[in-house]
Amino acid sequence: MPDVPEILHTETVARSRLFQVERVNLRFTNGVEVEYERVPGSRVGSVLVVPVLDDNTLLLVREYAAGTHRYELGFPKGVVESGEDVLDAANREIMEEVGYGARNLLRLDVMTIAPGYFGHTTHIVLAQDLYEKRLPGDEPEAIEVVPWSLHDWAGLLARDDFTEARSIASLFLARETLVGSVSR
Amino acid sequence: MPDVPEILHTETVARSRLFQVERVNLRFTNGVEVEYERVPGSRVGSVLVVPVLDDNTLLLVREYAAGTHRYELGFPKGVVESGEDVLDAANREIMEEVGYGARNLLRLDVMTIAPGYFGHTTHIVLAQDLYEKRLPGDEPEAIEVVPWSLHDWAGLLARDDFTEARSIASLFLARETLVGSVSR
Repeated sequence: MPDVPEILHTETVARSRLFQVERVNLRFTNGVEVEYERVPGSRVGSVLVVPVLDDNTLLLVREYAAGTHRYELGFPKGVVESGEDVLDAANREIMEEVGYGARNLLRLDVMTIAPGYFGHTTHIVLAQDLYEKRLPGDEPEAIEVVPWSLHDWAGLLARDDFTEARSIASLFLARETLVGSVSR
Repeated sequence: MPDVPEILHTETVARSRLFQVERVNLRFTNGVEVEYERVPGSRVGSVLVVPVLDDNTLLLVREYAAGTHRYELGFPKGVVESGEDVLDAANREIMEEVGYGARNLLRLDVMTIAPGYFGHTTHIVLAQDLYEKRLPGDEPEAIEVVPWSLHDWAGLLARDDFTEARSIASLFLARETLVGSVSR
Protein backbone atom coordinates (compact mmCIF):
# COMPACT_ATOMS: atom_id res chain seq x y z
CA MET A 1 0.00 0.00 0.00
CA PRO A 2 1.55 3.38 -0.96
CA ASP A 3 1.98 6.18 1.55
CA VAL A 4 -1.00 8.50 1.74
CA PRO A 5 -0.73 11.54 -0.55
CA GLU A 6 0.98 14.62 0.79
CA ILE A 7 -1.44 17.40 1.72
CA LEU A 8 -0.15 20.55 0.03
CA HIS A 9 -2.92 22.92 1.04
CA THR A 10 -6.33 22.89 2.71
CA GLU A 11 -8.87 25.68 2.70
CA THR A 12 -12.47 25.95 3.88
CA VAL A 13 -14.52 26.75 0.79
CA ALA A 14 -18.06 26.52 2.19
CA ARG A 15 -19.53 26.59 5.66
CA SER A 16 -23.01 26.44 7.15
CA ARG A 17 -24.33 25.87 10.65
CA LEU A 18 -23.75 22.09 10.39
CA PHE A 19 -21.39 21.55 7.48
CA GLN A 20 -17.89 22.58 6.59
CA VAL A 21 -16.42 21.80 3.17
CA GLU A 22 -12.65 21.84 2.70
CA ARG A 23 -10.76 22.00 -0.55
CA VAL A 24 -7.65 19.86 -0.33
CA ASN A 25 -4.70 19.95 -2.68
CA LEU A 26 -2.82 16.66 -2.66
CA ARG A 27 0.26 15.15 -4.26
CA PHE A 28 0.14 11.38 -4.73
CA THR A 29 3.36 9.41 -4.34
CA ASN A 30 3.54 9.09 -8.14
CA GLY A 31 3.79 12.88 -8.35
CA VAL A 32 0.26 13.49 -9.65
CA GLU A 33 -1.39 16.51 -8.01
CA VAL A 34 -5.15 16.72 -7.53
CA GLU A 35 -7.70 18.96 -5.88
CA TYR A 36 -10.48 17.27 -3.86
CA GLU A 37 -13.27 18.43 -1.58
CA ARG A 38 -14.03 16.80 1.73
CA VAL A 39 -16.27 17.29 4.77
CA PRO A 40 -14.15 16.67 7.87
CA GLY A 41 -15.69 14.59 10.65
CA SER A 42 -15.74 15.46 14.32
CA ARG A 43 -13.08 13.83 16.44
CA VAL A 44 -15.64 11.84 18.45
CA GLY A 45 -18.12 10.83 15.76
CA SER A 46 -21.51 9.31 16.35
CA VAL A 47 -23.01 6.14 17.72
CA LEU A 48 -25.60 3.73 16.31
CA VAL A 49 -27.18 1.31 18.78
CA VAL A 50 -28.89 -2.04 18.17
CA PRO A 51 -31.08 -2.53 21.27
CA VAL A 52 -32.11 -6.14 21.87
CA LEU A 53 -35.14 -6.81 24.07
CA ASP A 54 -35.75 -10.37 25.34
CA ASP A 55 -32.90 -11.87 23.26
CA ASN A 56 -34.82 -11.76 20.03
CA THR A 57 -36.58 -8.41 19.58
CA LEU A 58 -34.71 -5.52 17.98
CA LEU A 59 -35.95 -2.02 18.76
CA LEU A 60 -36.04 0.29 15.76
CA VAL A 61 -37.17 3.90 15.48
CA ARG A 62 -39.18 5.56 12.75
CA GLU A 63 -38.23 9.20 12.27
CA TYR A 64 -38.57 11.92 9.70
CA ALA A 65 -35.35 12.27 7.68
CA ALA A 66 -34.84 15.67 6.10
CA GLY A 67 -32.23 14.45 3.58
CA THR A 68 -34.67 12.11 1.85
CA HIS A 69 -37.83 13.98 2.98
CA ARG A 70 -39.58 10.83 4.19
CA TYR A 71 -39.94 8.72 7.30
CA GLU A 72 -37.11 6.23 7.69
CA LEU A 73 -36.90 3.11 9.83
CA GLY A 74 -33.53 2.48 11.44
CA PHE A 75 -31.61 1.91 14.62
CA PRO A 76 -31.31 4.73 17.20
CA LYS A 77 -28.29 6.93 16.66
CA GLY A 78 -26.84 10.22 17.71
CA VAL A 79 -23.75 12.30 18.20
CA VAL A 80 -21.18 11.41 20.86
CA GLU A 81 -20.83 14.52 23.02
CA SER A 82 -17.39 16.01 23.60
CA GLY A 83 -15.73 14.14 26.47
CA GLU A 84 -18.46 11.49 26.54
CA ASP A 85 -17.54 7.79 26.48
CA VAL A 86 -18.90 5.97 23.41
CA LEU A 87 -20.80 3.38 25.46
CA ASP A 88 -22.25 6.11 27.71
CA ALA A 89 -23.41 7.91 24.57
CA ALA A 90 -24.99 4.67 23.29
CA ASN A 91 -26.85 4.20 26.57
CA ARG A 92 -28.03 7.82 26.63
CA GLU A 93 -29.29 7.61 23.05
CA ILE A 94 -31.46 4.55 23.69
CA MET A 95 -32.82 6.13 26.89
CA GLU A 96 -33.81 9.17 24.82
CA GLU A 97 -35.08 7.39 21.73
CA VAL A 98 -36.55 4.04 22.82
CA GLY A 99 -37.03 4.44 26.59
CA TYR A 100 -34.57 1.76 27.72
CA GLY A 101 -31.11 1.63 29.23
CA ALA A 102 -28.79 -1.37 28.87
CA ARG A 103 -26.70 -3.27 31.40
CA ASN A 104 -24.68 -4.89 28.63
CA LEU A 105 -23.15 -2.74 25.89
CA LEU A 106 -20.83 -4.29 23.28
CA ARG A 107 -18.89 -2.48 20.55
CA LEU A 108 -19.43 -4.27 17.24
CA ASP A 109 -17.60 -2.07 14.75
CA VAL A 110 -16.62 1.42 13.63
CA MET A 111 -17.94 2.44 10.23
CA THR A 112 -17.45 5.27 7.76
CA ILE A 113 -19.91 6.69 5.24
CA ALA A 114 -18.56 7.59 1.79
CA PRO A 115 -14.98 8.01 3.11
CA GLY A 116 -13.84 9.52 -0.18
CA TYR A 117 -15.74 12.63 0.88
CA PHE A 118 -16.65 12.41 4.58
CA GLY A 119 -14.41 12.02 7.62
CA HIS A 120 -17.37 10.99 9.77
CA THR A 121 -17.16 7.79 11.85
CA THR A 122 -19.96 5.84 13.56
CA HIS A 123 -19.48 3.42 16.44
CA ILE A 124 -21.85 0.45 16.27
CA VAL A 125 -22.97 -0.80 19.69
CA LEU A 126 -25.08 -3.84 20.63
CA ALA A 127 -27.24 -3.13 23.72
CA GLN A 128 -28.57 -6.07 25.76
CA ASP A 129 -30.06 -6.68 29.23
CA LEU A 130 -32.36 -3.70 28.84
CA TYR A 131 -34.27 -1.94 31.64
CA GLU A 132 -36.95 0.72 31.34
CA LYS A 133 -35.50 4.21 31.60
CA ARG A 134 -36.54 7.29 29.67
CA LEU A 135 -34.54 10.48 29.19
CA PRO A 136 -36.04 13.47 27.39
CA GLY A 137 -34.85 13.86 23.78
CA ASP A 138 -34.86 16.94 21.59
CA GLU A 139 -37.04 15.65 18.76
CA PRO A 140 -39.84 17.81 17.31
CA GLU A 141 -42.32 14.93 17.57
CA ALA A 142 -42.52 11.69 19.56
CA ILE A 143 -40.31 9.01 18.03
CA GLU A 144 -42.19 5.86 17.07
CA VAL A 145 -40.50 2.74 18.45
CA VAL A 146 -40.87 -0.31 16.21
CA PRO A 147 -40.05 -3.73 17.72
CA TRP A 148 -38.88 -6.27 15.14
CA SER A 149 -38.22 -9.98 15.56
CA LEU A 150 -34.65 -10.92 14.66
CA HIS A 151 -36.04 -14.10 13.07
CA ASP A 152 -37.70 -11.85 10.48
CA TRP A 153 -34.53 -9.98 9.52
CA ALA A 154 -35.29 -10.65 5.85
CA GLY A 155 -38.65 -8.93 6.20
CA LEU A 156 -36.91 -5.89 7.64
CA LEU A 157 -34.40 -5.79 4.78
CA ALA A 158 -37.24 -5.95 2.27
CA ARG A 159 -38.94 -2.82 3.62
CA ASP A 160 -38.78 0.31 1.46
CA ASP A 161 -38.11 2.55 4.47
CA PHE A 162 -35.21 0.53 5.93
CA THR A 163 -32.54 1.89 3.61
CA GLU A 164 -29.69 3.28 5.66
CA ALA A 165 -26.41 1.49 4.94
CA ARG A 166 -25.29 1.71 8.58
CA SER A 167 -28.57 0.20 9.82
CA ILE A 168 -28.47 -2.59 7.21
CA ALA A 169 -24.85 -3.42 8.04
CA SER A 170 -25.61 -3.30 11.78
CA LEU A 171 -28.58 -5.64 11.40
CA PHE A 172 -26.26 -8.24 9.86
CA LEU A 173 -23.52 -7.67 12.45
CA ALA A 174 -26.04 -8.03 15.29
CA ARG A 175 -27.42 -11.19 13.73
CA GLU A 176 -23.91 -12.66 13.42
CA THR A 177 -23.24 -11.87 17.07
CA LEU A 178 -26.58 -13.12 18.38
CA VAL A 179 -27.24 -16.08 16.07
CA GLY A 180 -24.21 -16.83 13.91
CA SER A 181 -24.58 -18.26 10.45
CA VAL A 182 -23.95 -21.46 8.56
CA SER A 183 -20.97 -20.08 6.68
CA ARG A 184 -19.10 -18.90 9.75
CA MET B 1 -47.05 6.88 10.07
CA PRO B 2 -47.77 10.63 10.04
CA ASP B 3 -47.63 12.67 6.84
CA VAL B 4 -44.21 14.12 6.13
CA PRO B 5 -43.71 17.65 7.48
CA GLU B 6 -44.72 20.56 5.32
CA ILE B 7 -41.77 22.37 3.75
CA LEU B 8 -42.27 26.07 4.48
CA HIS B 9 -39.07 27.37 2.95
CA THR B 10 -35.81 26.13 1.47
CA GLU B 11 -32.71 28.16 0.81
CA THR B 12 -29.19 27.29 -0.30
CA VAL B 13 -26.90 28.43 2.52
CA ALA B 14 -23.55 27.04 1.34
CA ARG B 15 -22.23 25.81 -1.98
CA SER B 16 -18.91 24.52 -3.26
CA ARG B 17 -17.87 22.73 -6.43
CA LEU B 18 -19.27 19.39 -5.17
CA PHE B 19 -21.59 20.21 -2.29
CA GLN B 20 -24.76 22.19 -1.84
CA VAL B 21 -26.25 22.72 1.63
CA GLU B 22 -29.90 23.72 1.95
CA ARG B 23 -31.59 25.19 4.98
CA VAL B 24 -35.12 23.81 5.24
CA ASN B 25 -37.90 25.21 7.39
CA LEU B 26 -40.46 22.53 8.20
CA ARG B 27 -43.76 22.24 10.05
CA PHE B 28 -44.47 18.82 11.53
CA THR B 29 -48.06 17.58 11.59
CA ASN B 30 -48.18 18.37 15.32
CA GLY B 31 -47.57 22.04 14.48
CA VAL B 32 -43.96 22.16 15.70
CA GLU B 33 -41.72 24.17 13.34
CA VAL B 34 -38.02 23.40 12.95
CA GLU B 35 -35.08 24.47 10.83
CA TYR B 36 -32.82 21.72 9.44
CA GLU B 37 -29.92 21.56 7.03
CA ARG B 38 -29.66 18.96 4.29
CA VAL B 39 -27.46 18.10 1.33
CA PRO B 40 -29.76 17.15 -1.57
CA GLY B 41 -28.83 14.10 -3.63
CA SER B 42 -28.67 13.93 -7.38
CA ARG B 43 -31.70 12.44 -9.10
CA VAL B 44 -29.72 9.45 -10.38
CA GLY B 45 -27.45 8.67 -7.44
CA SER B 46 -24.52 6.32 -7.50
CA VAL B 47 -23.82 2.64 -7.90
CA LEU B 48 -21.79 0.18 -5.82
CA VAL B 49 -20.87 -3.11 -7.49
CA VAL B 50 -19.94 -6.46 -5.94
CA PRO B 51 -18.00 -8.24 -8.73
CA VAL B 52 -17.83 -12.02 -8.30
CA LEU B 53 -15.10 -13.92 -10.12
CA ASP B 54 -15.34 -17.73 -10.38
CA ASP B 55 -18.37 -17.94 -8.05
CA ASN B 56 -16.39 -17.37 -4.90
CA THR B 57 -13.91 -14.52 -5.33
CA LEU B 58 -15.03 -10.96 -4.63
CA LEU B 59 -13.07 -8.17 -6.29
CA LEU B 60 -12.36 -5.23 -4.03
CA VAL B 61 -10.45 -2.03 -4.70
CA ARG B 62 -8.05 -0.18 -2.47
CA GLU B 63 -8.14 3.57 -3.03
CA TYR B 64 -7.10 6.74 -1.29
CA ALA B 65 -10.09 8.34 0.48
CA ALA B 66 -9.78 12.06 1.05
CA GLY B 67 -12.51 12.20 3.74
CA THR B 68 -10.61 9.92 6.09
CA HIS B 69 -7.14 10.65 4.58
CA ARG B 70 -6.19 6.99 4.35
CA TYR B 71 -6.41 4.07 1.92
CA GLU B 72 -9.76 2.29 2.17
CA LEU B 73 -10.72 -1.16 0.95
CA GLY B 74 -14.19 -1.44 -0.52
CA PHE B 75 -16.29 -2.40 -3.51
CA PRO B 76 -16.02 -0.40 -6.76
CA LYS B 77 -18.45 2.48 -6.93
CA GLY B 78 -19.16 5.60 -8.87
CA VAL B 79 -21.71 8.12 -10.01
CA VAL B 80 -24.49 7.14 -12.42
CA GLU B 81 -24.21 9.54 -15.34
CA SER B 82 -27.23 11.54 -16.42
CA GLY B 83 -29.37 9.39 -18.71
CA GLU B 84 -27.32 6.26 -17.99
CA ASP B 85 -29.04 3.04 -16.95
CA VAL B 86 -28.03 1.86 -13.47
CA LEU B 87 -26.84 -1.54 -14.68
CA ASP B 88 -24.87 0.08 -17.52
CA ALA B 89 -23.23 2.36 -14.96
CA ALA B 90 -22.39 -0.67 -12.82
CA ASN B 91 -20.79 -2.43 -15.77
CA ARG B 92 -18.83 0.68 -16.77
CA GLU B 93 -17.52 1.17 -13.23
CA ILE B 94 -16.13 -2.35 -12.94
CA MET B 95 -14.55 -2.06 -16.40
CA GLU B 96 -12.83 1.14 -15.21
CA GLU B 97 -11.90 0.02 -11.72
CA VAL B 98 -11.26 -3.74 -11.82
CA GLY B 99 -10.83 -4.48 -15.52
CA TYR B 100 -13.85 -6.76 -15.98
CA GLY B 101 -17.29 -6.51 -17.48
CA ALA B 102 -20.22 -8.70 -16.40
CA ARG B 103 -22.74 -10.70 -18.41
CA ASN B 104 -25.01 -11.01 -15.36
CA LEU B 105 -25.93 -7.92 -13.35
CA LEU B 106 -28.44 -8.15 -10.50
CA ARG B 107 -29.84 -5.27 -8.43
CA LEU B 108 -29.61 -6.17 -4.74
CA ASP B 109 -30.82 -3.02 -2.98
CA VAL B 110 -30.98 0.76 -2.89
CA MET B 111 -29.34 2.35 0.14
CA THR B 112 -29.11 5.77 1.73
CA ILE B 113 -26.31 7.23 3.85
CA ALA B 114 -27.33 9.31 6.89
CA PRO B 115 -30.74 10.16 5.38
CA GLY B 116 -31.42 12.71 8.11
CA TYR B 117 -28.90 14.90 6.30
CA PHE B 118 -28.19 13.49 2.85
CA GLY B 119 -30.54 12.81 -0.05
CA HIS B 120 -27.96 10.61 -1.75
CA THR B 121 -28.95 7.09 -2.89
CA THR B 122 -26.73 4.18 -3.92
CA HIS B 123 -27.83 1.25 -6.07
CA ILE B 124 -26.17 -2.03 -5.02
CA VAL B 125 -25.47 -4.39 -7.93
CA LEU B 126 -24.12 -7.95 -7.93
CA ALA B 127 -21.96 -8.61 -11.02
CA GLN B 128 -21.39 -12.21 -12.16
CA ASP B 129 -20.18 -14.06 -15.28
CA LEU B 130 -17.25 -11.68 -15.65
CA TYR B 131 -15.09 -11.22 -18.73
CA GLU B 132 -11.87 -9.24 -19.10
CA LYS B 133 -12.51 -5.73 -20.34
CA ARG B 134 -10.76 -2.56 -19.28
CA LEU B 135 -11.96 1.00 -19.76
CA PRO B 136 -9.76 3.95 -18.78
CA GLY B 137 -10.72 5.57 -15.46
CA ASP B 138 -9.95 9.05 -14.17
CA GLU B 139 -8.03 8.12 -11.03
CA PRO B 140 -4.77 9.89 -10.17
CA GLU B 141 -3.00 6.57 -9.56
CA ALA B 142 -3.61 2.95 -10.57
CA ILE B 143 -6.33 1.37 -8.44
CA GLU B 144 -5.18 -1.74 -6.61
CA VAL B 145 -7.59 -4.66 -7.15
CA VAL B 146 -7.82 -6.98 -4.14
CA PRO B 147 -9.43 -10.42 -4.70
CA TRP B 148 -11.06 -11.84 -1.56
CA SER B 149 -12.55 -15.26 -0.99
CA LEU B 150 -16.19 -15.09 0.02
CA HIS B 151 -15.52 -17.95 2.47
CA ASP B 152 -13.32 -15.52 4.42
CA TRP B 153 -15.95 -12.79 4.72
CA ALA B 154 -15.25 -12.60 8.45
CA GLY B 155 -11.60 -11.84 7.75
CA LEU B 156 -12.65 -8.99 5.49
CA LEU B 157 -14.99 -7.57 8.13
CA ALA B 158 -12.18 -7.67 10.68
CA ARG B 159 -9.87 -5.48 8.58
CA ASP B 160 -9.26 -1.94 9.81
CA ASP B 161 -9.50 -0.50 6.28
CA PHE B 162 -12.81 -2.16 5.33
CA THR B 163 -15.03 0.34 7.11
CA GLU B 164 -17.58 1.72 4.69
CA ALA B 165 -21.16 1.00 5.76
CA ARG B 166 -22.31 0.45 2.16
CA SER B 167 -19.49 -2.02 1.47
CA ILE B 168 -20.14 -3.90 4.74
CA ALA B 169 -23.88 -4.09 4.06
CA SER B 170 -23.22 -5.16 0.44
CA LEU B 171 -20.84 -7.91 1.55
CA PHE B 172 -23.63 -9.41 3.65
CA LEU B 173 -26.24 -8.96 0.92
CA ALA B 174 -23.97 -10.64 -1.62
CA ARG B 175 -23.28 -13.49 0.79
CA GLU B 176 -27.02 -14.00 1.36
CA THR B 177 -27.61 -14.08 -2.38
CA LEU B 178 -24.67 -16.35 -3.21
CA VAL B 179 -24.62 -18.66 -0.19
CA GLY B 180 -27.68 -18.08 2.00
CA SER B 181 -27.52 -18.57 5.75
CA VAL B 182 -28.84 -20.90 8.39
CA SER B 183 -31.35 -18.39 9.70
CA ARG B 184 -33.00 -17.71 6.37
